[in-house]
Amino acid sequence: MNDDLGHHLLFDCYGCRGPVLSDLAAVRDLLKLAARAFGLTVIAEEFHQYQPQGVSGVLILAESHLAVHTWPERGFSAVDLYTCGTRPDVARLARHLETALGAERVETRQIGRGSLVVPVS
Amino acid sequence: MNDDLGHHLLFDCYGCRGPVLSDLAAVRDLLKLAARAFGLTVIAEEFHQYQPQGVSGVLILAESHLAVHTWPERGFSAVDLYTCGTRPDVARLARHLETALGAERVETRQIGRGSLVVPVS
Repeated sequence: MNDDLGHHLLFDCYGCRGPVLSDLAAVRDLLKLAARAFGLTVIAEEFHQYQPQGVSGVLILAESHLAVHTWPERGFSAVDLYTCGTRPDVARLARHLETALGAERVETRQIGRGSLVVPVS
Repeated sequence: MNDDLGHHLLFDCYGCRGPVLSDLAAVRDLLKLAARAFGLTVIAEEFHQYQPQGVSGVLILAESHLAVHTWPERGFSAVDLYTCGTRPDVARLARHLETALGAERVETRQIGRGSLVVPVS
């Protein structure tokens, strides 16, 4: 595994309750708080409120990106973190998102990226 | 499968040649051209040039997001498209990226997101 070329972590967050998924400012705050809590360095951000509902947001990180898409009407949020270098504690990040989104269940997948590049010795 | 909640398509692009991976403007142009070629609607964009090299960029789409991260020194680019609704022709998109990035090989993965949400009947 080429740790320097990235791990892509996918979090499917089900049963999200409350108004947070509909509120751009709340979604932005929770994504930035998650980045800070896991030592990720935010370089730039872009968020969008869909009509009639739903929010998309992306943080460009020193480590790559952290993105979220919400479907308030389905209680569903999809988060993905592309991180090169040190991989965060994935189970702890899943619990963090579960709490922040008021989710009943978070399904996590970890995908190695760039694994066919020959490592630098 | 809940087609409306998203497909996440990952493209690991190996053996990328030429200066494009180091050039923010070139990376932005190729990502926006790819979006246009596949009928994706760009809502917002954010790009960043790393030092000493490498570019990250994200387009927020009506359909969710299209992101790229480049490692010019390794000839590697990682692209991911999160799309809800209609899924583009994945093999054709892989070939498009291969040409645009001057890649020798593109490894493609398709991941369903939100598959545990009960479909709306």
